[in-house]
Amino acid sequence: MTDAPATVYLVGSGPGDPELLTVKANRLLSDADVVLHDKLPGPEILEAIPEHKREDVGKRADGEWTPQEYTNRRLVELAEEGKTVVRLKGGDPFVFGRGGEEMEHLAANEIPFEVVPGITSATAAPGVAGVPLTHRDHVSSVSFVTGHEDPSKDESAVDWEALADTGGTLVVLMGVGKLPLYTQALRDAGMAPETPVALVERATWPEMTVATGTLDSIVEVRDEVGIEPPAITVIGDVAATREEVVDFLLNRSDDTQSGAADR
Amino acid sequence: MTDAPATVYLVGSGPGDPELLTVKANRLLSDADVVLHDKLPGPEILEAIPEHKREDVGKRADGEWTPQEYTNRRLVELAEEGKTVVRLKGGDPFVFGRGGEEMEHLAANEIPFEVVPGITSATAAPGVAGVPLTHRDHVSSVSFVTGHEDPSKDESAVDWEALADTGGTLVVLMGVGKLPLYTQALRDAGMAPETPVALVERATWPEMTVATGTLDSIVEVRDEVGIEPPAITVIGDVAATREEVVDFLLNRSDDTQSGAADR
Ligand SMILES: C[S@@+](CC[C@H](N)C(=O)[O-])C[C@H]1O[C@@H](n2cnc3c(N)ncnc32)[C@H](O)[C@@H]1O
Ligand SMILES: C[S@@+](CC[C@H](N)C(=O)[O-])C[C@H]1O[C@@H](n2cnc3c(N)ncnc32)[C@H](O)[C@@H]1O
Repeated sequence: MTDAPATVYLVGSGPGDPELLTVKANRLLSDADVVLHDKLPGPEILEAIPEHKREDVGKRADGEWTPQEYTNRRLVELAEEGKTVVRLKGGDPFVFGRGGEEMEHLAANEIPFEVVPGITSATAAPGVAGVPLTHRDHVSSVSFVTGHEDPSKDESAVDWEALADTGGTLVVLMGVGKLPLYTQALRDAGMAPETPVALVERATWPEMTVATGTLDSIVEVRDEVGIEPPAITVIGDVAATREEVVDFLLNRSDDTQSGAADR
Repeated sequence: MTDAPATVYLVGSGPGDPELLTVKANRLLSDADVVLHDKLPGPEILEAIPEHKREDVGKRADGEWTPQEYTNRRLVELAEEGKTVVRLKGGDPFVFGRGGEEMEHLAANEIPFEVVPGITSATAAPGVAGVPLTHRDHVSSVSFVTGHEDPSKDESAVDWEALADTGGTLVVLMGVGKLPLYTQALRDAGMAPETPVALVERATWPEMTVATGTLDSIVEVRDEVGIEPPAITVIGDVAATREEVVDFLLNRSDDTQSGAADR
């Protein structure tokens, strides 16, 4: 190889609404030779990319995920062939997106790269649902945490007790399936059962759904409304703000189930 | 008033690079009758908005901040006059942006509004500096926290001990001035003195500066490099990633001071 490799762009797509792509993401998507993606950017954004440019490195036909090593290798290979690559990630590449690992692999292989931030679903989903993450008077921190780990296992890396102790807003990603486990862990850590909770599924997608409840009721609400991944869980007093404002909130495609809040 | 009020858009501008505005923010800025803003969106974005549309509700000529009550009132007044208003916030409106308070005031006054998320500086600044916020193997949470409160005061709402105990990445906003106080609070909470720390000033602005060090050295680094607000502090193992990758990182206008990491 004597030619210099092309650049890889690690690009965040935002939560799914094509209008929430950045100007830069749009420009890079037009200019790219190849776009490596999984399903998380959502159908509207993916369908707007010409099919001949797209390479799916998400779930394969056999239902298994493409191994991360394959994606890492493919990024290097394409760049060395001189192809300009956009690695498109749902939300922001560095928020539970494994963008860090891809970046390290690129640098180790001497491939020039750029990081193009996107709007993480962890802020967008609460935002469009009318849930502020901080509040000057009573919320001075917000924590994003994975709900994917089993809190009952000793090796669980998530310290739900410390998170409860922060007193701040908690935003859980990948947290639909294990909702019963971590809501219980938070109750065990002393969080009040009546703490407001909101679930936001497919935020900014045409079929967005919001459901609200409390730490005590939210598992039942999830089941009744039928909330499925991808969804965000927001836990904290701020989650109750939605009820106050929702009548005047014009965000698109919001199939609300806030009656569920009252059970 | 018989006419229906116009809509107020609470819009995040992202961290400052005009190309990191969303397509939607750009459309709304063109269509708006009035844009209420402070200085945080940064000069490049503000200068692109026609002057006759702009109303500055940030620091006034006398050096005082425009009271939040004035901004709240003005939003309602303009909407009732039938003017389409963009309330442009640096970063994301709901991350330490008082967007929640403005939203509540709008709803209380029966003004329809929409929330348009933006890329928060809390993700963008680490991102463009080559610092991932999470890591699959060892970081399962990231917390955004205000550095504005004095940790030595009893009434400080920030529980630095709980934040240290989460074991996750910490991202401090408004944390240049009180850096000595909260780095000390984190050390007192048992965080290792060699924990990597990165400071990112004016992320994505033409004069962006990055400086790195450890919990022990970062105050000295801040002073030598002359880091000033607005800046983000990232605390955690991920902050060391920058050193590994920076030679291949192409992000724009990055006046690095990573030699400072070695002292
Ligand atoms: C592997 S993580 C990737 C997160 C992504 N990097 C980001 O910043 O949004 C996948 C999780 O993101 C969340 N998520 C992504 N897009 C979403 C959307 N449009 N609405 C709700 N949650 C979403 C869900 O919690 C999902 O389980
Ligand atoms: C009042 S808070 C508002 C945060 C904003 N809503 C956001 O989401 O980025 C102001 C703080 O944001 C951070 N900030 C905003 N823009 C920044 C930038 N371009 N680079 C670094 N920090 C920035 C700084 O910590 C600053 O003190």
